[in-house]
Amino acid sequence: MNNKIFFTPGPSQLYPGIEKHIASALENNVGAISHRSKQFQELYKNTTENLRHLLQLPEEFHIFYLASATEIWERIIQNCVEKASFHCVNGSFSKRFCEFSTELGKKAFKAEVTFGNGFYPAEVHVPEEAEAICLTHNETSSGVSMPVGDINKFQEKNKNALVFVDGVSSLPYPELDYSKIDSTFFSVQKCFGLPAGLGIWIVNERCIEKSRQLQTKGIKTGTYHTLPALLEKGMVNQTPETPNAFTIYLLGKICEDMNHKGIATIRKEIDKKADLIYTFLSNSENFDTFVKDHTHRSKTTIVANTKISSPEINKRLEPFNTVIGTGYGSYKEKQVRIANFPAHSVESIETLIENLKKTGL
Amino acid sequence: MNNKIFFTPGPSQLYPGIEKHIASALENNVGAISHRSKQFQELYKNTTENLRHLLQLPEEFHIFYLASATEIWERIIQNCVEKASFHCVNGSFSKRFCEFSTELGKKAFKAEVTFGNGFYPAEVHVPEEAEAICLTHNETSSGVSMPVGDINKFQEKNKNALVFVDGVSSLPYPELDYSKIDSTFFSVQKCFGLPAGLGIWIVNERCIEKSRQLQTKGIKTGTYHTLPALLEKGMVNQTPETPNAFTIYLLGKICEDMNHKGIATIRKEIDKKADLIYTFLSNSENFDTFVKDHTHRSKTTIVANTKISSPEINKRLEPFNTVIGTGYGSYKEKQVRIANFPAHSVESIETLIENLKKTGL
Repeated sequence: MNNKIFFTPGPSQLYPGIEKHIASALENNVGAISHRSKQFQELYKNTTENLRHLLQLPEEFHIFYLASATEIWERIIQNCVEKASFHCVNGSFSKRFCEFSTELGKKAFKAEVTFGNGFYPAEVHVPEEAEAICLTHNETSSGVSMPVGDINKFQEKNKNALVFVDGVSSLPYPELDYSKIDSTFFSVQKCFGLPAGLGIWIVNERCIEKSRQLQTKGIKTGTYHTLPALLEKGMVNQTPETPNAFTIYLLGKICEDMNHKGIATIRKEIDKKADLIYTFLSNSENFDTFVKDHTHRSKTTIVANTKISSPEINKRLEPFNTVIGTGYGSYKEKQVRIANFPAHSVESIETLIENLKKTGL
Repeated sequence: MNNKIFFTPGPSQLYPGIEKHIASALENNVGAISHRSKQFQELYKNTTENLRHLLQLPEEFHIFYLASATEIWERIIQNCVEKASFHCVNGSFSKRFCEFSTELGKKAFKAEVTFGNGFYPAEVHVPEEAEAICLTHNETSSGVSMPVGDINKFQEKNKNALVFVDGVSSLPYPELDYSKIDSTFFSVQKCFGLPAGLGIWIVNERCIEKSRQLQTKGIKTGTYHTLPALLEKGMVNQTPETPNAFTIYLLGKICEDMNHKGIATIRKEIDKKADLIYTFLSNSENFDTFVKDHTHRSKTTIVANTKISSPEINKRLEPFNTVIGTGYGSYKEKQVRIANFPAHSVESIETLIENLKKTGL
């Protein structure tokens, strides 16, 4: 592998040691074995157990393997919403999730704040009709995070609604309280440092029960990726369709590596690296940290306004074989996004900061 | 990579040279680059152009990258069927495709024959109401194929319906006449010798127009994977969601390799290998070729009844590091399925037959 380092917010830097795991996947014929074979079932079980351990996930939650977090947005609405969902919208991804609900013919209620801002639960009113409350732990577009303590307040006030937490670009960093949420999900190309092509959907029994209720009412919830279909196969360590077994295997190996390191250490390192980056940004003449409320600042996707355009910064970083993320959408030139994922070592962040300084920033 | 050879009908033997392409994918940061970057667009374009050349696909057809052929079944019904579809059902996969239509709330008409049999177009009546005619070129479960000449007869008799051809376990082998069909699709883990996790959907303008008509009528056609959404991103060599870029890259490389060899040579070799296998089966005391009508016999998935159970045969093949496919579903023990894909060299098929003979078959 060449030595370019990606601080882009996903796809991003691959997790150290990935080549070794790819070699072992080939050695073990992971790309060739049947997805109905015992070998596949063991592989599936190994990934699920390691991921469960890493996330400290209670037994009553199920882990399902889909194609992308984008697919999971669609499956959530299809499976768990009969008439109305509610969304906290504060960036491009939470906005798109909300649009999915409308596009699938549901009523999508939302609370919306301007780009760069977060939510204060006391000010958010969730309509009684909302069957699903869709929160984004980490808005990859704006670098705004919703503190876990705030996420935990929604269920108490809305006992009948299911709480879904988009953890796409932050899991396994946040220490979620699984007694206060019903589902979370992520993509492997963010904090897990894997090539894209796998979305992980975690649900409790309430979600599955809701999907069954919808089916009983004759509501169309999909085909191969309904929650009951995923559960039926998941119970025997299989998927309904021929899955991306190669990446499921790699995810298991990366989770093993992360468990070996320890989730506490990973979280501590992310905190430390985030401090380094935010301190650098606040001392720089060029940058202006985008998220003003410190409690809403993402630890894993750090966004700043930049005087020098982000493509120009990347040009200056080329001799250092380093790439950072540009701003999202219309903010492309005016902002930078720096990923702070488990694949990025403390040393690599220190070097990034040094190199940014060397280029005059 | 270890030297086990898989003659299973998918996932199956990886295409020769795959390790080299995986190494070059890592070298080129394919797992880390943004799916909105120029490098990704070039990668996408390269795969599309090589696949288009391999399949001799006319310009007016679009190629889209989804997660699996199973997903494509769902997207076909959602995007291209308002009320009713028609299905030729002669095995487990064509049956499941038909069920998808019902599960999505459509009326699914079907013609059905018993397992191991194929269709004779003159005897098949397609109801006037059917908006989509769903044919399976190669039924992976039973080893029954529908000759291309027969596929070509449907559109002429049903000018208003769209013709969909499931080429999951046969493309790029069949020389399809694209003026007689509207769409085809396949999975990469069959004849393309790649790890699973990518489904390729090929459609013409009529399919896209149909999806637009449904949207205009207010029918829900999905979210990120509607045909207009796929087209909008496809036009700029992108996908709506973060895709399995790694496998899109590998598919491009395998198509390059196949184009270098030449599609005519690949087809000739498949014919030759199929002859070798069918001849062996008909001379064996143990096997009885399952598909009786020679014109319906698959060239790429060859199925036979077996006196000695298929797991027992695989046990006997273990010393030769060789695996063949067992029967599908309830036929697991009673049948074998031998994949004859481009990844299987003539020599490897000859060796397989020798080894089967050595084990007393």
